[in-house]
Order: sequence, then structure tokens, then C-alpha cells
Amino acid sequence: MNDAPIGIFDSGIGGLTVTHSLFECLPHESTIYFGDTARVPYGPKSPATVRRYSLEILEWLLSQRIKAVVVACNTSSAHAIETLQDHSDVPVIGVIEPGARAAVAATQGGPIGVIGTAGTIASGAYQRAIHDLSPATHVEQVSCPLFVPLVEEGWFEHPASELIAREYLDPLVAAGTDTLVLGCTHYPLLKPLLARVLGEQVVLIDSADETALAVRRVLSSLDLEAGPDNPANHRFAVSDDQQRFLDVGSRFVGERLSHVEVVPLG
Amino acid sequence: MNDAPIGIFDSGIGGLTVTHSLFECLPHESTIYFGDTARVPYGPKSPATVRRYSLEILEWLLSQRIKAVVVACNTSSAHAIETLQDHSDVPVIGVIEPGARAAVAATQGGPIGVIGTAGTIASGAYQRAIHDLSPATHVEQVSCPLFVPLVEEGWFEHPASELIAREYLDPLVAAGTDTLVLGCTHYPLLKPLLARVLGEQVVLIDSADETALAVRRVLSSLDLEAGPDNPANHRFAVSDDQQRFLDVGSRFVGERLSHVEVVPLG
Repeated sequence: MNDAPIGIFDSGIGGLTVTHSLFECLPHESTIYFGDTARVPYGPKSPATVRRYSLEILEWLLSQRIKAVVVACNTSSAHAIETLQDHSDVPVIGVIEPGARAAVAATQGGPIGVIGTAGTIASGAYQRAIHDLSPATHVEQVSCPLFVPLVEEGWFEHPASELIAREYLDPLVAAGTDTLVLGCTHYPLLKPLLARVLGEQVVLIDSADETALAVRRVLSSLDLEAGPDNPANHRFAVSDDQQRFLDVGSRFVGERLSHVEVVPLG
Repeated sequence: MNDAPIGIFDSGIGGLTVTHSLFECLPHESTIYFGDTARVPYGPKSPATVRRYSLEILEWLLSQRIKAVVVACNTSSAHAIETLQDHSDVPVIGVIEPGARAAVAATQGGPIGVIGTAGTIASGAYQRAIHDLSPATHVEQVSCPLFVPLVEEGWFEHPASELIAREYLDPLVAAGTDTLVLGCTHYPLLKPLLARVLGEQVVLIDSADETALAVRRVLSSLDLEAGPDNPANHRFAVSDDQQRFLDVGSRFVGERLSHVEVVPLG
């Protein structure tokens, strides 16, 4: 047993969906979230830069005496996960491998679809992770750059969001996709819309939920779980502009987000 | 007469609309464009950070022996224009004052509408600039966070873009707006759509065009114009990811954007 907090980080606000899944899946665990809002987005930055920023955040989280790190950022998971694992004395869990594993388990043989930001799709990280597990599986990737701003506007069910979703997802429907990986931490908030557009025969893989399950498995296997009486405590920190984080973040995790610290990095 | 280039900078790609207007308005002038793609967007960053980044870019542009600087970035114009002017021995022209001046000249007394990113609207910079010129004018501001990603997707006439534009602009139509300032360098690419949604009675103020006209006035008043035989030469530099800049930038300036240098800053 270990009541120390779990560290979670993202380039900005999207990792709060992973945090929300952790709250649901591991209600006794304390957490510390870091959103690098001063340097968001990571997608267009070079892999070396993403690794450098991720290591700076890791160092800060480790200084807060955490027992595990969740890389709740697809870009950082794609470019920095091994570097982070090399530099950490606690377990480091990314979002890509859990999502890929769940998709491979769910598919009935139809292609697996992957949607994400332009950066995540260009990195090919999900495709590689799926092929590592199942080399013959066909993967169809589509980048959906408008989904993040739609989520940040809170337009989860707006008619414009539905038009945009149809435009992005039509090629996946046409290809006979039976499983869709939501390869961006913002996308779980669009799940009802995406399910309607795709039809109920398509299984949606929520990387946030899958990552929370992976964290539970890791903590359990290392006997690092918090005790059942641990009063879960949740801290949130950002590198800039905490007001916007508060305003938009409440869409992700509700009232548990009431106070945000500013920790300048870099 | 002076054949040295004009320096232009933006946090990313949007300033290319200003560059395009400069090409049209001043066809004999050479230009050097710098897009800070490693650190885009500036909107959510603190004013002190925006000033620091802007000064680093100014220093690089001055080292290229430019004769004037165009701050083709609304956030930098809002937070850094005076600092830049203090540190520059060549004229520095921002995008906000020319747009505000044209709007005040165009309005028939109805409110002036201003649209921009969340950061520009929150800064209140256009409202202040308009009130400096005409204190009694009523200004209606609306932030339109989805317009930049729509432009970067190239969805200038997509039905989803029209739905989104109607949602954002309905309050301005209801308020009887007679003049609309496009307070973001991406928005000129949406002009035909915005004109349709607002109706032809509303005058659209394109900050890019207005800024180019202001640059012409400044060069002329200081006798800094290029000679009529000057072979205009155009350079483009970014701080990261030149491929995406090439891909998206061609929507803004066409084939004149064929080569991009990378200049890491900071």
C-alpha cells in the first residue's frame, strides 16, 4: 500500500479526461495534474523539443513525491515515453499502448480506425503500437484538427460538430471500420456524437478509460495502491493562464477543479 | 529610396494574410517573414512572455538589415508594440491601430463589431484603440475560437463553417452592427462567407489590407520606399516545422511560398 499521489501531465487541458477516468476507476488515489499551458500545443513541435519539455515536467512531478506518472498527452507518449521511463524511478504509463491494446482486443477483423490531431496521426504512433501487437491488422488513420477546438468551445452536440464529424469519419465508415480509437485526450467528450455518426456497430476505444485501467493494473502489480481509507486529494497545476484552465477544465472534471496553482517551467 | 526588405512577424502562419496584402499594395518591396511556429499560439501566454518572444524576433529581423517591422500578430500588437518601438531604430507598425482607424472612418453610427481569438478579445485592444479615436462609439466584441482552425483546414465555404459563423455573428447582427473589424490575421480568408452571413450592409474591415496601407504611408513619409526597378525578393523563416508552414501557408500566399528557412529562437 502507498498513499502517495499519482502524477499526471499533458501539454494542456486534454489530459483531464484521463484524470476523470482515474477518479472513476481509482477513487481512493490522490493525484497531481500538470498542464503545460504556457507551451501548448506539443503537436507541431519537434520530437526533441517535446522530450525536453516532458523531462522538465517529470522532474517537477518527481519533486512532489509521486508514486507513478501518467503521460496523458498523445504527443508526449508518442515521442518521449521511453526517455521518461529511462529518467524515472517510478512507473511511467502513456496513453497510446493501452488504447492500441484495447482496439486489438475489440476488433472483429474489420480495419481499426484511429482519429487524432494532425501531429499524432503524422507520428504514426497508434498504427505502430497496433502493428506491434497484431501485424496483420489493417489500420485507417484520420486527423481531425477541428475536434479539439470544438471540445474547448463545449460544442459537444452542435449541428456544426455533427457536420464536421461526418466529413472526417465518412472515409472510416466507407472502409468498414469496426473499432475506432479516440487517439486524443479531448475526444472522449465527443463520444455520444461520434457513436451516433458511426452507428452502434462500431466499438469506440476511449484511451482515457483504457489508460486508467492500465494504471490500476500497474499499481496493483507493484502493490502501490492507496489504502481504502485514503482521503483522495487532487491538485492541479499549470505553467500559465490558470483562469482559462479553470473555465474550460470544469467541462472535463466538474467541480473537483476549483483551485489551480501556477508553476512556471523552462 | 531604400531597397532593404520589410520585416514581418507573427506567432505562426496567420501573418501571411498581411504579407499577401503587402505584396498587392507594395509590389516592389522585398520582405522577410518570421513565423514563431515553435511557440504558437501567443494568445494564451502572459503579456510579459509575449513581449519577450516579440523582442527576440525583432532582434533577429534587425540583424537581417530590414528598414521597417510589421507586427502581423494581434496578440503581439496588443501587448508588445510600445516595447518593440522602444527597442527598434526602424519604424514598427502593428495591426490593431490601422484596423481601428478604418472602422471608425467607416461606421455610420451603428456599433462597430470586433471579432478575434479569445486572447485578442480578452485583451480589449481593439476596443481601446477605437475608443482612443472615438470615445462615444459603441463596440461589440465576440471571440470566435473556431475560425482559426477552420481556416487552417481550408474550409472557407464548408456548410459547417457557415453554421459556426451564424452562431458567432448572430449577436452582432441583432445589435445592428454596421462595421465589422476582422481582428485576427486568419480571418480575411473567411471574408466571402462572413459577408454572406452578415449581409452586404455591413462593412468588413480587413486588418491585413489596412495594415499594408499604413505601411505604405509610413514608408512614403520617411522616403523609405523601394525603387520601381527593385526586384522584390521574399524570404520566409519559421522557428519549427517548416513543412506544415509550407502546406498551410500556400493557402495564404500561393506559390510565392516555395522555400522556408528554420531559425530556432529562444
